[in-house]
Amino acid sequence: MTNNTVINNPKELLSEAFTVAVRSVIPAAALQPFLPALPKGRLAVVGAGKAAAAMARAVETHYEGTELEGLVITRYGHGLPTRNIEVVEAAHPVPDQAGLNATERILTLAHSLGPDDLLLCLISGGGSALLTAPRGVSLVQKAELTKALLRSGADIQEMNTVRKHLSKIKGGQLAAAAAPAKVVSLIVSDVAGDDLSSIASGPTVADPSNFAEALAILDRYKLDFPAVRRHFEAGVAGNLAETPKPGSAALARVENYLVASAQQALEAAADFLFAKGVTPLILTESLTGEAREAAKFHAALARQVISRGQPLSRPCALLSGGETTVTVRGSGRGGRNSEFALSLALELFGLADVYALAADTDGIDGSEDNAGAIIGPDIFALVGRQEAQKYLDANDSYSFFAKAGALLNTGPTQTNVNDLRILLIL
Amino acid sequence: MTNNTVINNPKELLSEAFTVAVRSVIPAAALQPFLPALPKGRLAVVGAGKAAAAMARAVETHYEGTELEGLVITRYGHGLPTRNIEVVEAAHPVPDQAGLNATERILTLAHSLGPDDLLLCLISGGGSALLTAPRGVSLVQKAELTKALLRSGADIQEMNTVRKHLSKIKGGQLAAAAAPAKVVSLIVSDVAGDDLSSIASGPTVADPSNFAEALAILDRYKLDFPAVRRHFEAGVAGNLAETPKPGSAALARVENYLVASAQQALEAAADFLFAKGVTPLILTESLTGEAREAAKFHAALARQVISRGQPLSRPCALLSGGETTVTVRGSGRGGRNSEFALSLALELFGLADVYALAADTDGIDGSEDNAGAIIGPDIFALVGRQEAQKYLDANDSYSFFAKAGALLNTGPTQTNVNDLRILLIL
Repeated sequence: MTNNTVINNPKELLSEAFTVAVRSVIPAAALQPFLPALPKGRLAVVGAGKAAAAMARAVETHYEGTELEGLVITRYGHGLPTRNIEVVEAAHPVPDQAGLNATERILTLAHSLGPDDLLLCLISGGGSALLTAPRGVSLVQKAELTKALLRSGADIQEMNTVRKHLSKIKGGQLAAAAAPAKVVSLIVSDVAGDDLSSIASGPTVADPSNFAEALAILDRYKLDFPAVRRHFEAGVAGNLAETPKPGSAALARVENYLVASAQQALEAAADFLFAKGVTPLILTESLTGEAREAAKFHAALARQVISRGQPLSRPCALLSGGETTVTVRGSGRGGRNSEFALSLALELFGLADVYALAADTDGIDGSEDNAGAIIGPDIFALVGRQEAQKYLDANDSYSFFAKAGALLNTGPTQTNVNDLRILLIL
Repeated sequence: MTNNTVINNPKELLSEAFTVAVRSVIPAAALQPFLPALPKGRLAVVGAGKAAAAMARAVETHYEGTELEGLVITRYGHGLPTRNIEVVEAAHPVPDQAGLNATERILTLAHSLGPDDLLLCLISGGGSALLTAPRGVSLVQKAELTKALLRSGADIQEMNTVRKHLSKIKGGQLAAAAAPAKVVSLIVSDVAGDDLSSIASGPTVADPSNFAEALAILDRYKLDFPAVRRHFEAGVAGNLAETPKPGSAALARVENYLVASAQQALEAAADFLFAKGVTPLILTESLTGEAREAAKFHAALARQVISRGQPLSRPCALLSGGETTVTVRGSGRGGRNSEFALSLALELFGLADVYALAADTDGIDGSEDNAGAIIGPDIFALVGRQEAQKYLDANDSYSFFAKAGALLNTGPTQTNVNDLRILLIL
């Protein structure tokens, strides 16, 4: 250690930093500052996404004693008990009839509101598939087009331009449906950069794209969907209403707030570590790629800190958000965070003073019961390095960390801003 | 751009930065400041490594008019014409008889020197296999042990401890052989962290390891090599001379200088960019891992700069050294740097203001004729993005950049400090 900071228990510090980060994006805490005063008229609550039920509960707690109405849609298995706000479970990522029916009810509720009423929207990742109201095409046609778009190499913005123009609710149309009521939309981001018009396809956010652009994308990727083409051509000809554009009168009483994001969680962890005398560096909120390869990059940066004091001098922490992937080759158990942690441990072998945590902010690493894992220089004390390599080769990182006594268990956190990785270099 | 710096030609700037970086580690320039005054007695020049011939030429140019003696060993195909210093080509990475014979001649020359003489050693990457003088075992046994060590999971320090104790020249023994002559050793590093005792197994650097440790490594990895074991046991019993230790009298007149390294090339590029108004950040000198995955990490960092101004604000540059790998799945052409650059271009699609260079400092990316490639937002102008993805899938990045007109060609540079990647974010 190069200064006077004393870190007595580095693993404990990492675990605390993770807890602080997750707490900063948990709906109960994150929604609180953004919840509006009660309206003169009705308070209707709608929403969709993986955090929808937890967000609905936070709303009910805040307005305790007030009669609330409305419904939110979440993924199968993500429901939680609520008092007034109905929670509907539906399919993700491929929409189903349950999502279709619930979305129709949300639109009907929005249309029923008047100028004294307030529509409170609770939006989180996954909401795009759960809020489904096809326009001009059937659900099946839309699903086929989505698959073709994914194969075509279209980017996420192009995907969204097309999808918003095949929907009755995306691209600001939910908010427009509620006019003249006031709309407050609280958004938990799972999208790098937190572009509000992208999260859940932005049902309460003005849409800068138009039918002509959607049509051009069909041409660009040579997508042969005659019904979709006819729909877009009708839109270009002015025979269909466009999605509401920035500055639109229909959105005059709409307020969108980002209440939680990966960046926010990273900043919370960074602030916590800074207060403990550790210099933090946020590398990225949007890491992608193979987990074991991402570990090599993190290890290379840790080596540079140790050998050169670049880009930071010790004690310091390197933080990254985003979501890696695992190409499964073996038959073992383990999610992307434990795979990252095991690969990192092997890369860091022989380096004292480096500790690391990798975990999913939703508390569940893949399909296991752990959130992730924590490593330190003693990680191979119970299971040796040669043995550990075999666990990695078999994609069996969960079993390794179970034997090594280094699993991180938090239980489900009821929020999700993707993964968090923290390297602590003392 | 967030300040007043005007970069008129970003690709030109990247190409210049690469030239500056390579020039800083070219033997002709890098050796110059470290070459000693002529001795009263003989000046003998020996050496080994991929840059040995280029280093020998730089020495001859510097001492023009002086009669030099000696020989250096380089890899087959890496020889260059010299005047007095003989250049011997030998096998790498598996040693052969040519290397064995030349190493014996180097040791004989070193032993022949007296107190008024000077031994100038020219060491670069690859020297460990080229300088080969087995002790206690045959060349074949040593090669088999090396293979077994690689399979065992032993780390590079453990490998070196064993190899230094099966050699007559490694681990400071070349320098000790030259005593009482003065020894000046000029070292080009290809090892992350530039540990001088690791580069070419440190023939002129004191060796802190000993026979007991070498023996323990045989036990640790259950390596069954009876002849090696007997040799190490004889060493432990005190019946064999140890390698010279730090503070050893045999090394009293030895000076080791690091004359070129990946870090040095990175710093040169960083300084150049800084002078042009671009804030540089060196991420690591020792990147490893799959090229296309490393590109994803670099892209994630570029996105963070653009969306959050972290870890730097624009205009800035992210630099990394080290060597990636390519797992070949297709049948195309291209080295690891062009594969990295193509993967990066696909990852960065849609982002204006990001430019990048990836190239091998030796001027040859894999087995092609280019050093690497340069990309910018217009990279898909001639070959579209969908088409480009197919080139990447086929490991055919060379063909892509040839068609896109974006190959970087420098010709062989006569030095090698691995790869250099620079992302410029304006």
